[in-house]
Amino acid sequence: METNAKKIKIGIVAVSDRASAGLYEDLSGKAIIEVLSSYIVSEWEYEYTVIPDEMDVIYKTLISLSDRHECCLIVTTGGTGPALRDITPEATEKVCNKMLPGFGEKMRQESLKFVPTAILSRQTAGIRNSTLIINLPGKPTSIKQCLDAVFPAVPYCIDLLGGPFIRCNEQQIQAFRPKSS
Amino acid sequence: METNAKKIKIGIVAVSDRASAGLYEDLSGKAIIEVLSSYIVSEWEYEYTVIPDEMDVIYKTLISLSDRHECCLIVTTGGTGPALRDITPEATEKVCNKMLPGFGEKMRQESLKFVPTAILSRQTAGIRNSTLIINLPGKPTSIKQCLDAVFPAVPYCIDLLGGPFIRCNEQQIQAFRPKSS
Amino acid sequence: METNAKKIKIGIVAVSDRASAGLYEDLSGKAIIEVLSSYIVSEWEYEYTVIPDEMDVIYKTLISLSDRHECCLIVTTGGTGPALRDITPEATEKVCNKMLPGFGEKMRQESLKFVPTAILSRQTAGIRNSTLIINLPGKPTSIKQCLDAVFPAVPYCIDLLGGPFIRCNEQQIQAFRPKSS
Repeated sequence: METNAKKIKIGIVAVSDRASAGLYEDLSGKAIIEVLSSYIVSEWEYEYTVIPDEMDVIYKTLISLSDRHECCLIVTTGGTGPALRDITPEATEKVCNKMLPGFGEKMRQESLKFVPTAILSRQTAGIRNSTLIINLPGKPTSIKQCLDAVFPAVPYCIDLLGGPFIRCNEQQIQAFRPKSS
Repeated sequence: METNAKKIKIGIVAVSDRASAGLYEDLSGKAIIEVLSSYIVSEWEYEYTVIPDEMDVIYKTLISLSDRHECCLIVTTGGTGPALRDITPEATEKVCNKMLPGFGEKMRQESLKFVPTAILSRQTAGIRNSTLIINLPGKPTSIKQCLDAVFPAVPYCIDLLGGPFIRCNEQQIQAFRPKSS
Repeated sequence: METNAKKIKIGIVAVSDRASAGLYEDLSGKAIIEVLSSYIVSEWEYEYTVIPDEMDVIYKTLISLSDRHECCLIVTTGGTGPALRDITPEATEKVCNKMLPGFGEKMRQESLKFVPTAILSRQTAGIRNSTLIINLPGKPTSIKQCLDAVFPAVPYCIDLLGGPFIRCNEQQIQAFRPKSS
């Protein structure tokens, strides 16, 4: 049984002009919390925020969650489409030291099984210092679909970044940690 | 029956040193016109031009078709390979506000079913203001293959960009418009 | 029987702090030499080097192999993961005139058949002048898997770059050269 000196803290950011203005309830951010709760059996806590599609706000929110709150993982939802206001991937790239194109490829590939418009999704993932940042699309129904597709690689990625050890419920998700190369 | 206040105008750009010098006839640009004509049942018109593989010329052509001619869609052909003169994706990225990596991924995936050299294709897609720009490869036989792969997502993308409503011939192509999220 | 005026010279670069410090033997670079020897029947020679995960060193090594040694192909191994010291893709992008995203997509797609953590691999390929540069992951067992996936497109790519004609052992790898478009 591993001891976890480091806290598991996860940032959840819903990016939506309308939800942040109170015009409707954010369901996608809540869906992320629900799905992660079903995956993770280690003790963890989250910072959850709903913000508008503003470059400056997204940028500062991601930096604060990474640098100040020391989240090992940040999951965003929304702002990944082709519309004028959709700029979450650009904000993500701006705060990251390196990008992980495989996350976007994999999520689009999965979504393509359901809708041909999946190619319009621009979501990506990247790393800021020791924080993995993953963009999910804004549609509540896509949240579990996309997390199911990429989360098996997330705990090992956080290991490689020197973060806390995340233990998962094998009935819900098969996290994969390769033998050391 | 939707009323279409906005004109559907599509730019078709064949990028080829040899075709623009009159050394051979451009077949790929003409193939694009033919395929789009079979897809689209709404009234539409096109601007068609054949230009050399020069950064400055491609750049100005794309900007003119987007800003002056107000095309909702520009389809290029040629200049997407690895050779020295192939620079269409770079010119496209230069004029775009945001990129859509899913188009290139999907087209390469389709082409890989036919030839392993599909991984050499660097085509992409992006958005300049309200214009969707899609690169296709230069080979005439790939035109329909690639358009069949990505066009189902195009009318909805143009909807999201505030452009005209494009109605398609369902026998030829299944355009997909998801229920509002 | 083609005559090969140009020499086939291939650079092999193992990027690893520990191997370059002598803490263990580089097996991946040696695996690349072995796999390429099984593929290529034309006469060829290689430049092989083991270097640390330092941007400046990787950068200068790639430039030297391309500009001074006139390698038509450089294959790197290591430094493609998400960890802090992994910067081979960034160094590659820095020396290249154009990128070939299809290589990374194809390699991740293949690796995904074996491990879900393949999405953490950031390897790419690009072109510096007449040199094709391909990143492979650092794990010795992935070398043949990744080369099998992308090498069929390599000889034709080098043709397009004006490089030497590479003849392959068809029993080992099916190089593909499309009829001229």
